[in-house]
Amino acid sequence: MEAILENETKITVNEKSVHELDSLFKPKAIAIIGASSKELSIGNVILKNLIHYGYTGKIFPINPKEPTVRDIKAYPTIFDVPGDIDLAHVIIPSKFVPQIIEDCGKRGIKSVIINSAGFSEMGEEGVALQKAFLANAKKYGVRIFGPNCQGIINADPQYNAYCDFTFTFPKPGSISIVALSGGVGAFIMQSLFDLEIGMHMYASNGNACDVSISEVVKYYGDDDGTKAIILYTEGFHKPKEFMDVAKIVSKKKPILAMKSGRTEEGAKAAASHTGSLAGVDITTELIFEKTGILAFNNEEEMCQAAMAFSTQPIPKGNRVGIITNSGGPAVIATDELVSAGLQLPALSDRAKNILIETMLPEATIGNPIDVVATGGGKHFRSALDVLMQEETIDSVYINFVTAPFTDTDEVARQIVEVNKQKRKPIVCNFMTNMSLERFQVTAKILKDGGVPCYSFPTTAAKALGALYKYYKVQNRNIGEAKIFNDVNKTEVENILLQAKNEKKEFLKSAQTYNILSQYKIPVADWQIANDVNDAIKAAEEIGFPVVIKADAESLVHKSDSGGVVINLKNADEVKATVEKMKKAFEAKDLKFFVQKFLSDGRELIAGVSAKKDLGHLIMFGIGGIYVEVMKDVVFKISPVTEMEANEMLSQIKTSKLLDGVRGEKGIHKQSVIEIIQRISQLVTDFPQIQEMDLNPIMAFEDKAFVVDARIKIKKD
Amino acid sequence: MEAILENETKITVNEKSVHELDSLFKPKAIAIIGASSKELSIGNVILKNLIHYGYTGKIFPINPKEPTVRDIKAYPTIFDVPGDIDLAHVIIPSKFVPQIIEDCGKRGIKSVIINSAGFSEMGEEGVALQKAFLANAKKYGVRIFGPNCQGIINADPQYNAYCDFTFTFPKPGSISIVALSGGVGAFIMQSLFDLEIGMHMYASNGNACDVSISEVVKYYGDDDGTKAIILYTEGFHKPKEFMDVAKIVSKKKPILAMKSGRTEEGAKAAASHTGSLAGVDITTELIFEKTGILAFNNEEEMCQAAMAFSTQPIPKGNRVGIITNSGGPAVIATDELVSAGLQLPALSDRAKNILIETMLPEATIGNPIDVVATGGGKHFRSALDVLMQEETIDSVYINFVTAPFTDTDEVARQIVEVNKQKRKPIVCNFMTNMSLERFQVTAKILKDGGVPCYSFPTTAAKALGALYKYYKVQNRNIGEAKIFNDVNKTEVENILLQAKNEKKEFLKSAQTYNILSQYKIPVADWQIANDVNDAIKAAEEIGFPVVIKADAESLVHKSDSGGVVINLKNADEVKATVEKMKKAFEAKDLKFFVQKFLSDGRELIAGVSAKKDLGHLIMFGIGGIYVEVMKDVVFKISPVTEMEANEMLSQIKTSKLLDGVRGEKGIHKQSVIEIIQRISQLVTDFPQIQEMDLNPIMAFEDKAFVVDARIKIKKD
Repeated sequence: MEAILENETKITVNEKSVHELDSLFKPKAIAIIGASSKELSIGNVILKNLIHYGYTGKIFPINPKEPTVRDIKAYPTIFDVPGDIDLAHVIIPSKFVPQIIEDCGKRGIKSVIINSAGFSEMGEEGVALQKAFLANAKKYGVRIFGPNCQGIINADPQYNAYCDFTFTFPKPGSISIVALSGGVGAFIMQSLFDLEIGMHMYASNGNACDVSISEVVKYYGDDDGTKAIILYTEGFHKPKEFMDVAKIVSKKKPILAMKSGRTEEGAKAAASHTGSLAGVDITTELIFEKTGILAFNNEEEMCQAAMAFSTQPIPKGNRVGIITNSGGPAVIATDELVSAGLQLPALSDRAKNILIETMLPEATIGNPIDVVATGGGKHFRSALDVLMQEETIDSVYINFVTAPFTDTDEVARQIVEVNKQKRKPIVCNFMTNMSLERFQVTAKILKDGGVPCYSFPTTAAKALGALYKYYKVQNRNIGEAKIFNDVNKTEVENILLQAKNEKKEFLKSAQTYNILSQYKIPVADWQIANDVNDAIKAAEEIGFPVVIKADAESLVHKSDSGGVVINLKNADEVKATVEKMKKAFEAKDLKFFVQKFLSDGRELIAGVSAKKDLGHLIMFGIGGIYVEVMKDVVFKISPVTEMEANEMLSQIKTSKLLDGVRGEKGIHKQSVIEIIQRISQLVTDFPQIQEMDLNPIMAFEDKAFVVDARIKIKKD
Repeated sequence: MEAILENETKITVNEKSVHELDSLFKPKAIAIIGASSKELSIGNVILKNLIHYGYTGKIFPINPKEPTVRDIKAYPTIFDVPGDIDLAHVIIPSKFVPQIIEDCGKRGIKSVIINSAGFSEMGEEGVALQKAFLANAKKYGVRIFGPNCQGIINADPQYNAYCDFTFTFPKPGSISIVALSGGVGAFIMQSLFDLEIGMHMYASNGNACDVSISEVVKYYGDDDGTKAIILYTEGFHKPKEFMDVAKIVSKKKPILAMKSGRTEEGAKAAASHTGSLAGVDITTELIFEKTGILAFNNEEEMCQAAMAFSTQPIPKGNRVGIITNSGGPAVIATDELVSAGLQLPALSDRAKNILIETMLPEATIGNPIDVVATGGGKHFRSALDVLMQEETIDSVYINFVTAPFTDTDEVARQIVEVNKQKRKPIVCNFMTNMSLERFQVTAKILKDGGVPCYSFPTTAAKALGALYKYYKVQNRNIGEAKIFNDVNKTEVENILLQAKNEKKEFLKSAQTYNILSQYKIPVADWQIANDVNDAIKAAEEIGFPVVIKADAESLVHKSDSGGVVINLKNADEVKATVEKMKKAFEAKDLKFFVQKFLSDGRELIAGVSAKKDLGHLIMFGIGGIYVEVMKDVVFKISPVTEMEANEMLSQIKTSKLLDGVRGEKGIHKQSVIEIIQRISQLVTDFPQIQEMDLNPIMAFEDKAFVVDARIKIKKD
């Protein structure tokens, strides 16, 4: 307690500006509502952790019965506490929480971490309690962190705020963590601890009823002490909000993220423990892609990458130079680096000439540079200097096995010297026996010198691969979605309103094609005919061959029931078809959709699907077996920019087909890219569009047309 | 020295039988030729390591000048040494090695580890020296390990033979390592050391001029102390030899293997440091697949998997039960387990009823079983007992976070109790802070109890995935290749002999199709015609439509030059075609290959390519864009069994096309499977066939025919 009171004055306001979440992450006084003398209870552990970690602010245990808790003066209620309180922990049964939040509001407490469980994760009663305390919080402007959560940690020595009941006490560092699951957050923190890379801030917000992951990411983004962010989630409640935040933050600093529940079974497991999100969603991965988040499927890899981000600059390209003192590990590293998109350029003659002078005769002069096991500090240094000077090299990978017959400390010192220049990123696969004191010394030189060290070549190479991936993120500008001004928004609005008034879910053909036309999405020529004569006239105007589709509200799956007849070559065929359809379909509103029949182009497919709180997913693929058998499609989140539309064409596995193969001609990609962008604008303008299928789009050497389309809107 | 002499009697002959390599791996007396007093020299370090590791046999330093080396009596030459010597280290300049090997032979030394470099890896002179010492070794029956190698280690306390200059001193265990690269071998050994799983034997044989990786794998396979084998290589000098060994050993015990040089750049790096192998080869991966080796692309994952193999039984199926005390890590684990092919079956009612009684009220009863963070030893135990009894569960995955408010030691003890039953494999993701003494105790309980513990859910799940993969290996019986007795081997021999005498590389059409016919590989009907009338007669006999191919020795790429005309529907078209070809090709030996034209089947493609010292690779795919654009082909090593031929059809990505899609009929797979098997038999019978292309094979609903074929043979 004395120490805490002494430390009190350490907190000075030197932030650029006061942020609403500062009361949560930078509290100057904390009340623990539910502080307990019972060892190992959460109300005791949180207090113990705050003391143990050396919290620099004031601590006020709240306990109606005890005069002190863990030797710190306790107060019966928060109203008995003298002075301001920024943050309160709430560790009391859930039924009392709404009242306590009311009290916190009255007392002027700005943030509350509700560690208690028993809310939205526990059925109806819990949901009601959560609603109740949230209403009280809103009333007083209290920000709620949780409930059913671990809490936050700020490892900045200015605060040492360990507002959490976990058991890992990280050193200060530059990585900040935000995790939906406390269990995952804790082992990520532990991993940073084990890797000795330190941590800056930590947040695990459980049910996340108020302060969201997005808000925390934004806060970390603005925080100068955070160099990189680690994020774990099982999905987003408000994906659009997150996307807007992530887009900005990821340009400023790397966000390393993992989203679990990528298999159906995983999603089921996630639903069972969060009680909120279910089903495999591809949306989160698309959000990661669109916003430039570095996505991982392996949390160990993610933490290993964080180690490189915490000390190394971002490379300025994909060209890596390898220095090794052992053959095999360089081969393994090369495999992994190349797989990650890096290249190993040949060395310049200048570089080779220097190395011929400086290396041992057994050394291999090339890329990799093999300084051989007997190579010492000066050999490593010369190789490093050469690579730092090579204009064609953007990063350096080192294999350093501590051969017993070399001065390994000197090698380490030379690596550190060059690393301190921060000219190009360095990662080191450091192969040693850490149980030998001699090599512990070598390891410490590297560690203290900020060299990220790994125990396996693949692991080190993957970390460098992540740095390079962030280089690509920083340099990838997808731009803004193009706005086409030649569209007729009002007319589409009218059509959709009309459909809505007709209580339709699926639009009629005329409505559908009209909408496309209003947005200048090219459609194969069409007319609506009422009878045989109309149809023949229409066909003659359009030009044979034509396709005729029976058009009536009751017909949705037309092609299954003979409602679509293709390749009609003359008036007689049109007549026969219309008459047959009249007999087959007795709908009163039956009309005949006559359209130009296009057959010899490349069949493409595009689709749209609305996603709650996000926008729409836009899908593109090549029709036929490519979609049906191979599921070879690409999704993007609307609004789709020109660059993204371009990517959709190049990211399908069979993209080469679009260029023409086996003597076929390629398609006019720009037309398709424009169709995708116009669809994106259409659904962005009209969120009531739930689904849209353009199948097929027929693409030719010089143009592309939508041939069949379907639009589904919100019913109510 | 005294200790060594005392230990002498410890070595007793209790092996089942004496193996030639016992002198290498179980030496009773070792001479160190080139033992040196110079600290950190290899001749000193090897001696030091032998002493440090407590070698139980006799050590004889050989040094012409010093009376003792590291306080052990030295001898001027091996001839001065009293008594038998099993093994000699050779650490002298390469030029003296041939003579020393001669001496070793005369002295009756059975095995020699040549640590010295300067042989086949160092150009012509080195190659000559290597040849010279090998000849001497053969003369006396001395086995050579190396040269340019680290050596061997036998961690069995009966030997404690550390015949190596590396710096990691593993505890005895059940994993044995063999590595082409000493650098890689060393860090794998280090990883086993760090994981505290111990090691049994180690071998890194450098240039591998005599004792091969295959021989070591065979030795480990027969060795009772080896439970699992780790193998690292960059390719095989004698792939067939390795395949024969691996096929047998992998059924007895798991072989975990990694082959680097899987990228072009990696292969280049490998070539530069071994000086022997170059180019990306897919052969090694195919060997791994065919022989049931567990292949890894990530050496860290491989070592982590070894930990599970060292203590756990192999599961009897793919059904896993998860026990967790934290939500998020169970989601991550589920994702990875499912990705590895495991399933999470629902629990039986019986199991659920027990758990309802025994679990905390907050627990989730299902699969995963979430015992929640407050769950203690009895909760874990009950969940474990239930899963051990469930007939639908083959393995158990545990997430165990050391929640500070639980008796974590008791949890660990209960896990260990159940683990000792060895009924089903258990892996544990143990999430803790090892810097806290309390949890070090918990960790030790788990470790001593043989529970494989990991620090990340994905890592633990991958290890369990590897155990399951080995279950599949043990249960995958590809069978033996079928021998078709209806083939005419003699006739093919004659044709090939004739072609060879004609100094042909590519066979003529008649030769090619004759060979196929002799092996009952169905070919679309064909005849050779000399002129127009012949051709018309042939076409009429075969039946229109036909295809005509100009056939002359000088024409290889016929279709490019108008030498192939398809779909000829009548005699006039045949006539016109033959006349046109006569004008176009002036070859004296010009003939006309008339063949039934088949067009409406599914185009398939098969191919063969001879691989030195191995046999042939057989390739299968679907013709057209699937091969050309998507590179969707599968390879197997001949002889291909029926099961493998089946797999070839199902392993291509577009295999669904073979079943018929979009209203098309499927093909007659059995016909294609038989064609593949017959091709395999043909090339196995005639290794002089270098390449063979069957492109296309036309497959129909009820049969399949080869439509075009090309065979290339060895020229000399």
